[in-house]
Amino acid sequence: MNELTQNFNTLEIIDQQPLLTVRLNRPTLANAMSLEMVMELVAVMETVKSSGHRVLLIEGAGDHFCAGGDIKDMQNAGGDAKKLRDFNRAFGHMIETADQLPVVVICSLKGAVMGGGFGLACVSDYAIAEPGARFALPETSLGIIPAQIAPFVVKRIGLTQARRLALLGQKISAAEALSLGLVHQLADSDEHHQQLIQQGIQSALKCAPQATADTKALLHAVNNSVDTENGQSVSRLLDQAAEDFAAAVGNEGREGASAFMEKRQPNWASDYDK
Amino acid sequence: MNELTQNFNTLEIIDQQPLLTVRLNRPTLANAMSLEMVMELVAVMETVKSSGHRVLLIEGAGDHFCAGGDIKDMQNAGGDAKKLRDFNRAFGHMIETADQLPVVVICSLKGAVMGGGFGLACVSDYAIAEPGARFALPETSLGIIPAQIAPFVVKRIGLTQARRLALLGQKISAAEALSLGLVHQLADSDEHHQQLIQQGIQSALKCAPQATADTKALLHAVNNSVDTENGQSVSRLLDQAAEDFAAAVGNEGREGASAFMEKRQPNWASDYDK
Amino acid sequence: MNELTQNFNTLEIIDQQPLLTVRLNRPTLANAMSLEMVMELVAVMETVKSSGHRVLLIEGAGDHFCAGGDIKDMQNAGGDAKKLRDFNRAFGHMIETADQLPVVVICSLKGAVMGGGFGLACVSDYAIAEPGARFALPETSLGIIPAQIAPFVVKRIGLTQARRLALLGQKISAAEALSLGLVHQLADSDEHHQQLIQQGIQSALKCAPQATADTKALLHAVNNSVDTENGQSVSRLLDQAAEDFAAAVGNEGREGASAFMEKRQPNWASDYDK
Repeated sequence: MNELTQNFNTLEIIDQQPLLTVRLNRPTLANAMSLEMVMELVAVMETVKSSGHRVLLIEGAGDHFCAGGDIKDMQNAGGDAKKLRDFNRAFGHMIETADQLPVVVICSLKGAVMGGGFGLACVSDYAIAEPGARFALPETSLGIIPAQIAPFVVKRIGLTQARRLALLGQKISAAEALSLGLVHQLADSDEHHQQLIQQGIQSALKCAPQATADTKALLHAVNNSVDTENGQSVSRLLDQAAEDFAAAVGNEGREGASAFMEKRQPNWASDYDK
Repeated sequence: MNELTQNFNTLEIIDQQPLLTVRLNRPTLANAMSLEMVMELVAVMETVKSSGHRVLLIEGAGDHFCAGGDIKDMQNAGGDAKKLRDFNRAFGHMIETADQLPVVVICSLKGAVMGGGFGLACVSDYAIAEPGARFALPETSLGIIPAQIAPFVVKRIGLTQARRLALLGQKISAAEALSLGLVHQLADSDEHHQQLIQQGIQSALKCAPQATADTKALLHAVNNSVDTENGQSVSRLLDQAAEDFAAAVGNEGREGASAFMEKRQPNWASDYDK
Repeated sequence: MNELTQNFNTLEIIDQQPLLTVRLNRPTLANAMSLEMVMELVAVMETVKSSGHRVLLIEGAGDHFCAGGDIKDMQNAGGDAKKLRDFNRAFGHMIETADQLPVVVICSLKGAVMGGGFGLACVSDYAIAEPGARFALPETSLGIIPAQIAPFVVKRIGLTQARRLALLGQKISAAEALSLGLVHQLADSDEHHQQLIQQGIQSALKCAPQATADTKALLHAVNNSVDTENGQSVSRLLDQAAEDFAAAVGNEGREGASAFMEKRQPNWASDYDK
């Protein structure tokens, strides 16, 4: 876990095993995502794959979650097309990494959730928004395209809603984000927001870690069978899933069944260091 | 139809041609799905493919629809991985069979709709819930995985909502199930529930049987062109659909057009034996 | 633009560069879609690909958007299966063309939005409905199948909702259409309806034309990677998108960034001839 004790320039890290909180930390810039922030996020996520943490909570310092890519960073690239391409691709790589993490990813959303911030929210397993949160894909109004975000937005809210948001650039409210399924729940106050986050963490920690990782991989496999020509047919997928099921029953499922019969918490149900 | 007059241990069958009602019938166990129930359901569904029934209504005896897989059945398998795998796979086979039935499948949902019960609800053509119905995927909290259900849950409510439900194991209300599209309509009382079910049956019986079977197959083909590497491109699908359209016009469409012009019911519009 | 000044029998064309309005114009028949209307729509859409228009608004004359295919046209085909097939396939071709247009397509929906009208609404980038609009897929109740519409309905509202609508033929309200994501917004009055349409047009015209076309193509590519065996994997798609991003930054993005820094409108932000 050395990687988590190092100093980050753009992130604040709060380690409460098995919960890890990552706070995007450029509050005066509405946490605009610079290349440095992208690289630091990838470093944290790579660590989380084997650090024993079971929940990754992503939030923003100050009034906003994240207003999108850092326009100054893009200008610094000047006319250098290769630099721009690599910066953009690095962002997509970060989103993909977040999407596939074997732990539960929770996003706490407030203020501006725009562009890249919108994209990051799209790969969370559980997203809770404050009533004042505002969501938008403003890229085309700036003459650019939501290049690395598009696939994750379409996976999250479908082509229909992605069309409107990406092509008209209109802001939507937290209530609309809820109705689109962009977020899972809408808090009605700060206190309620904290409560929902805590309940989400507690719920995730009641689930067995290996079963969680396996289930998340299975959900992605189902979706990948939709995404690529290498996708397995549903029947083959179900065959493999039945093997995995039998393995789970002989592994964590043993403890799960005992706990259920004995009306006690299973041994993986844990709180986190507060 | 001999198969429907046999005695079932776990199901109650009510035959009102062209409506067939299947009642999951283990009320003291919240209709927990045993291997026997899975096998009996498959037997009924195989029969329905050619029995002349046009609507299959699935409901639960007592206070619940179905609380999920029968944990005792799993324990009876002991450490026998092959037995567990086969039990699990049989369940997926039942869901697939229900999904592909050429008749209209309606689910009447109340009380617990969990695990396998949740999965069965996911392949209905029309699902109506009572206000008190509760939905959950509790597998990971028991140390196991929603192995055979995952593809059908993702197809039903999308990856975004599947992630939250499968990874946090949280129960959701009937109102939330409606907003996710897990159910199509929410009744506000017992009486309203019965009314919606009756209207659904009547609506289905106003539609031509062959056109219904063809349309359901077409919707699956569209979705399979999304699911598998063997999927046809949309253009080829539309070419074939145009052929099927012309055939339908010359078949049931002839009666449909006459009835429309003569302002009468078409000859397939039928009530069922009450 | 000669093609737009010609006389159309079934359409009214209103040219307010960069906005083009197409009004389905058979009000006494609830704008039922004849083969002639399908052909005229395709002609207009082909023109729009290079006419410099940036928004295509589709609406209906009179009280309805469009009640579906013209049953008389089908009867005129008599028993000629080839004619019926070609008529049906032409309709699907029109929908595909509308779906892929490089400009923003807005649908203004009222009254009957049925069958083919429902299908056309399904490929809009932005759809606004009046409170009295009614939506249905009545094909199976007429003994025929929603052959050319099915793929676009499934893409728009998902398999779950498509099953119910296509197999039961039930009408749904504008409020339900909103909750299904069939439409993006619901007006609460005629005045509000016009306001939402105007806002949608203005929003679209604030976005850069090339970025809009590129983004729309990207969203389709994401979805095609889901639809066909030739689909690229998401990673390859993101690689290409990063190249396109860098190109956009050096093109319209230059003006977009300048306008943003200088707090002025970019040079592509335009109103339309009123």
